[in-house]
Amino acid sequence: MDTVYNRLMDYSLTEAYPFHMPGHKRRLEGDILSDISRIDITEIDGFDNLHDPQGIIREAQERASELYGAQESFFLINGSTCGILSAVAACVPRGGWLMMARNCHKSVYHAALLGGLKTAYLYPAMEKHFSFCSGLDAEYIKKELDAFYETHPGETIHAVLITSPTYEGVISDVRAIADFLHARRIPLIVDEAHGAHLGLAKGLPLGSCELGADIVIHSLHKTLPAMTQTALLHVNGNLVNRQKLRFFLSVYQSSSPSYVFMASIDRAVTMMQKNGEEYFESFLKRRSDLLDSLKRCKQLRVFQKEGTDPCKLVLSTGKSGMSGKLLYDTMRIKYGLQMEMAAGDYVVAILTVMDSKEGFRRLEKAVLEIDGRLEACDNTPKSELTQEDAEPQKIIKAEVVCTLEEAALRREQIQIPCEEAKGRICGAWIYVYPPGIPILAPGERIKGEHIAAVNRIRQKKLDLKGICDNQMSVLK
Amino acid sequence: MDTVYNRLMDYSLTEAYPFHMPGHKRRLEGDILSDISRIDITEIDGFDNLHDPQGIIREAQERASELYGAQESFFLINGSTCGILSAVAACVPRGGWLMMARNCHKSVYHAALLGGLKTAYLYPAMEKHFSFCSGLDAEYIKKELDAFYETHPGETIHAVLITSPTYEGVISDVRAIADFLHARRIPLIVDEAHGAHLGLAKGLPLGSCELGADIVIHSLHKTLPAMTQTALLHVNGNLVNRQKLRFFLSVYQSSSPSYVFMASIDRAVTMMQKNGEEYFESFLKRRSDLLDSLKRCKQLRVFQKEGTDPCKLVLSTGKSGMSGKLLYDTMRIKYGLQMEMAAGDYVVAILTVMDSKEGFRRLEKAVLEIDGRLEACDNTPKSELTQEDAEPQKIIKAEVVCTLEEAALRREQIQIPCEEAKGRICGAWIYVYPPGIPILAPGERIKGEHIAAVNRIRQKKLDLKGICDNQMSVLK
Repeated sequence: MDTVYNRLMDYSLTEAYPFHMPGHKRRLEGDILSDISRIDITEIDGFDNLHDPQGIIREAQERASELYGAQESFFLINGSTCGILSAVAACVPRGGWLMMARNCHKSVYHAALLGGLKTAYLYPAMEKHFSFCSGLDAEYIKKELDAFYETHPGETIHAVLITSPTYEGVISDVRAIADFLHARRIPLIVDEAHGAHLGLAKGLPLGSCELGADIVIHSLHKTLPAMTQTALLHVNGNLVNRQKLRFFLSVYQSSSPSYVFMASIDRAVTMMQKNGEEYFESFLKRRSDLLDSLKRCKQLRVFQKEGTDPCKLVLSTGKSGMSGKLLYDTMRIKYGLQMEMAAGDYVVAILTVMDSKEGFRRLEKAVLEIDGRLEACDNTPKSELTQEDAEPQKIIKAEVVCTLEEAALRREQIQIPCEEAKGRICGAWIYVYPPGIPILAPGERIKGEHIAAVNRIRQKKLDLKGICDNQMSVLK
Repeated sequence: MDTVYNRLMDYSLTEAYPFHMPGHKRRLEGDILSDISRIDITEIDGFDNLHDPQGIIREAQERASELYGAQESFFLINGSTCGILSAVAACVPRGGWLMMARNCHKSVYHAALLGGLKTAYLYPAMEKHFSFCSGLDAEYIKKELDAFYETHPGETIHAVLITSPTYEGVISDVRAIADFLHARRIPLIVDEAHGAHLGLAKGLPLGSCELGADIVIHSLHKTLPAMTQTALLHVNGNLVNRQKLRFFLSVYQSSSPSYVFMASIDRAVTMMQKNGEEYFESFLKRRSDLLDSLKRCKQLRVFQKEGTDPCKLVLSTGKSGMSGKLLYDTMRIKYGLQMEMAAGDYVVAILTVMDSKEGFRRLEKAVLEIDGRLEACDNTPKSELTQEDAEPQKIIKAEVVCTLEEAALRREQIQIPCEEAKGRICGAWIYVYPPGIPILAPGERIKGEHIAAVNRIRQKKLDLKGICDNQMSVLK
């Protein structure tokens, strides 16, 4: 097939001599970068232009649309980040209202800040017996939207943005949410960065394009075989101004986009088109075998729930007394298994079709051994987290006093001790990383509950960001 | 040395197994991308974080600062584009004034649009006998600044941004401009995207960091051996709010930055640190031999001027009757030499230390042969362009009626025939590409001269952007 990669390889074998960018002239020497440099070109004749695609890049983008059932797709070479910034800027006018899930990625907060947007938050509940967010459903969003219009007569929500799947693999009811919002002519943007694989094969949950979302953003590198920093943006329906969307994509992405990245995106798409079914069939088989054997765990608990993302494996330490960080470090140092992330009382592993049988075996062995040792020290029955255990992670609703932009960029800030901050307006983002959900965002009124949560987190020795030496930045 | 690349290669040889991003699990198969995938990781333990560097990335950035004589440097993985957006956002508050050269890259116009900035333009003169812009000097900028303050009492210019070197290799008097602006406490941002090599060896013009610029942005891929889309931003002095700068760099760049890119940036920096002198000594020798032999040209003319960028070779077709595009196509199709760009009556080649002797020989032979054929059809003495010949490229000053943001994003636009546009306010960017200098930008009053220029350009069959089927978009 005439893919971007094949075209680049063919060109690398011609006599054509480059008196153009890049400066390495495809002759980098002495390492891996020398090979890759052979296909690292710029917009020369016959190789199209990402910012105005008419040739091979346009065809490649059309292959992506076909794979995901999207009306139009765009290659992103600055990650999902630039897709989020562009989607929000295209849907919400400067100073307009964005209704967003509180557990959105920081790029969504950045998009709201850049646009001087007013933000209304959707607060997901916690997963039962686990200390991370659950999904969102249409009824809750309807309730919030009705409440908003009651309290903000004459105002308009220009777009709703949710994250699905979450970092932990929880998927929201996108179809019902999209149907409800479309009845109100509100576009739904889904940050599906963690779900580029959804809908690509039997046995996988459906993707948000098929479920009716207006804009869907996919990180290709998270769960598919593509290079880090590659992503896709898909657009559907008539609620999104596509001219504005194209404009902002050209603003937030380099005017010298990497052909290596574009080739990698196209490779991943064609790979899935050709062999997606087989890849995922064997992957899902291996994964269910792994989960079966992990059922033997007495202390560690695997997050399992109908319709969650099979590319995530969430291991909770429950009440075993072991912290997520210790489990993470043990896996890494003792077993050479690098997990994706550690939270207070769980770790997340990313499983993909590229994982080897040997990798799965090593993971299974490590988890069972660690669980066995925990069991040896404590053979009380397998313990489950209660809502109180999840307390420190629970999201406390905050009153928004001014926009993110005004608080973070326009107003003067001062540093004061946390215990004196009650009632003041927060000037920074305060969050536990990971997963990075803000306890407080700039422009929000600091309650006693927030300070109490901050103290609980400190006692748990979690990685608290935005507070340094017990000082909080607040608006003057 | 413990470079980013070496650390990645060492890690690729360990037993460590990835249950994290990227999804290719370093096992992409069957092509060049499989090798590169070995070093394509995410922010795992020991590999630092571009958005909060404390380890190997910080050390690598310090090597870059040392190489360029900067106080602080930042790796950019979204090209110079994100450096420009961040620099402007850090220096100019929303709605503030940016004084910018009219021949700036479109990313500067985008930065002004995003910030709702008011723009005051610096109009470079044309190079004598050539149809492209000359540099800027301190006297002219002083004159423009004084005129601005006279006509805008109470207003402030928050930053001045110029491009040096230009696409054609013209360098401005950065030291004098920086000294003058600093006396007025105005930061100078230099888009030195084309000059990452400046100051790296004897015989090269000095770079803007050494010459006193407050922020300097370098595309590494244009003239140094680095991958496309890699760049650096340097900051000096105390006129720039570095906290804001860091914040915007984290906003405009992917939160999953490519380690392959970071390794490539570090490789280019260490290469220049170690062998820059030797590389450029032989490069400058080969280049001057090339120019000596091109002196034999009777019709084609090489742009040569004291202190211009040696990494650019500008070949003017003068009055030979041959267009820049035809020269470009002849080089490409008949000789397999791909030039960087073709303008109305010249082509630009990028020459770097990675060029081979053979490449230079092929270029020399091709240029002399083409010139010989031109001479055969027309043996009038070597012709020089007059100011009239350069007319179509001459920049016509335009009256700014409203900001780029208001015109491009807020106001309603309609399409009307060009001949009816006189007196209306332009809604889009109208320019010849390359080089892409706006004839009109959104928010500017359309004069008869502009329409005349557009018609002349059409007669010359240059690639005119922003006008389709003789329709111009103007504000309603």
